[in-house]
Amino acid sequence: MKLSTVSTVPQVRQQLDAIRRGGKTIGLVPTMGALHAGHASLIENARAQCDFVVVSIFVNPLQFGPNEDYQRYPRPLEKDLEVCERVGADLVWVPSREDLYLSEQRIFIEVTQLGDHLCGPFRPGHFRGVATVVAKLFNVIQPHKAYFGEKDYQQLRIIRKMAEDLNFGVEVVSVPIYRDADGLALSSRNVYLDAEERTAAPALFRALLAAKKMVEEGERDIRVVKDASMWILAAEPRIRPEYFEIVDPIELQPVTEIRGEVRVAAAIWIGKTRLIDNVGALSA
Amino acid sequence: MKLSTVSTVPQVRQQLDAIRRGGKTIGLVPTMGALHAGHASLIENARAQCDFVVVSIFVNPLQFGPNEDYQRYPRPLEKDLEVCERVGADLVWVPSREDLYLSEQRIFIEVTQLGDHLCGPFRPGHFRGVATVVAKLFNVIQPHKAYFGEKDYQQLRIIRKMAEDLNFGVEVVSVPIYRDADGLALSSRNVYLDAEERTAAPALFRALLAAKKMVEEGERDIRVVKDASMWILAAEPRIRPEYFEIVDPIELQPVTEIRGEVRVAAAIWIGKTRLIDNVGALSA
Repeated sequence: MKLSTVSTVPQVRQQLDAIRRGGKTIGLVPTMGALHAGHASLIENARAQCDFVVVSIFVNPLQFGPNEDYQRYPRPLEKDLEVCERVGADLVWVPSREDLYLSEQRIFIEVTQLGDHLCGPFRPGHFRGVATVVAKLFNVIQPHKAYFGEKDYQQLRIIRKMAEDLNFGVEVVSVPIYRDADGLALSSRNVYLDAEERTAAPALFRALLAAKKMVEEGERDIRVVKDASMWILAAEPRIRPEYFEIVDPIELQPVTEIRGEVRVAAAIWIGKTRLIDNVGALSA
Repeated sequence: MKLSTVSTVPQVRQQLDAIRRGGKTIGLVPTMGALHAGHASLIENARAQCDFVVVSIFVNPLQFGPNEDYQRYPRPLEKDLEVCERVGADLVWVPSREDLYLSEQRIFIEVTQLGDHLCGPFRPGHFRGVATVVAKLFNVIQPHKAYFGEKDYQQLRIIRKMAEDLNFGVEVVSVPIYRDADGLALSSRNVYLDAEERTAAPALFRALLAAKKMVEEGERDIRVVKDASMWILAAEPRIRPEYFEIVDPIELQPVTEIRGEVRVAAAIWIGKTRLIDNVGALSA
């Protein structure tokens, strides 16, 4: 099947109704475009598990703060469509802003508890915007499965909880982080980095790995783990840490003592670019 | 077809998947039970317009405030099932609290603007609770049409806006208020009224009708209309007015001058019972 593109909600509904009537399973990969190998991996997973794969490409204004990079966010649509075609998407949905926000939005998805830490306090309204647009995508596509990367771990947990709490009949599938050879997690924002910033960036993953190692070797003291990781970040003068937290992997609350499974997550700034990453760790 | 009852989400999903595969249209009438002729009218409308009619009966704890009548709310299930059978429902879904709130709810529907006036300030969290449970019902049932009575006009507007804003593929159908011969709007809470309270209650509708008449005769001054209506309520010593507002019928904001179409809505207390009612009016 040749890859096709649609934009309006009625178009995409009509096309998917026919697929559904044929008894096929539908997989959704929601993206903001600027697709990289991490996105390709999401689409490939959907391809392997579903009969019909929809990729949505929409830079969602609702999830950007007033001083964030909504305007600047990369939008290489032609290249994105090539990626979708190469990895076997069946349909690419590229709504306009008006297609998804037809009239003034009054109803939103409210995220409690899971948005209180990590990125939440630094990006007020972000997860509300993410959850709201994903609810819209879920309702239009009504996928059987939807694919989210673990790099945005807090987003993944929030979307999974939303699917449970609001009884969306959607299975949320998580896909491991795709990294460059030096450990940097792929992100559409990596294109913002100049050469020197790109060289500094892998320290983020090294700091997380150091924390993981200490946890898995039995260190229980948060402060000891954080301090060691912060030293690694401090060795790169271009990096300004935003947060470095150890949380429980379900409710995303900071732990007071390290026991069992935890998630170590961090955000840093390099120049004007904000990067996030995280690792899971099981306490010895 | 003999009326059947289900309780769990998987049960209801399974039964409706079969209906959907058969190409039938599904109508949902969400209720809290204690069914009266107003509910029967909702079900009859669904019966006339859809192939398969689902009535849900669930007293939703999330929409009651801590000092409200959640415990006391009437739950005459046997009688409700008789009503559903008599007016031709195909399936009655009676979830338990655990069926709908499986784990601690963290994700909610946030209502802005449309919940700011009328009942909103007097019942904090009410519309958030209503919208959240209706989103759950919509996601489980995935109806083509859903039926709501105009007595709860603010609820109707909020649910309609939710369906639009979150792209639920559900047509929200409104059904006119069903009234007793003396004008009292039917409500499950009318059973709380003793004989004297019941005699006083129709003053609410009379006050609204007086406002409607003044608007339709060209009165543009809010104060003049409100004062006249409040005198009608004041003539009944058992009635304590909670609010009496004239709002635009879409965004539900109080109007400063009466022009075009408005909604006149009021809430009163009679003894321990809170009653609401509303009328539409078109300015002369």
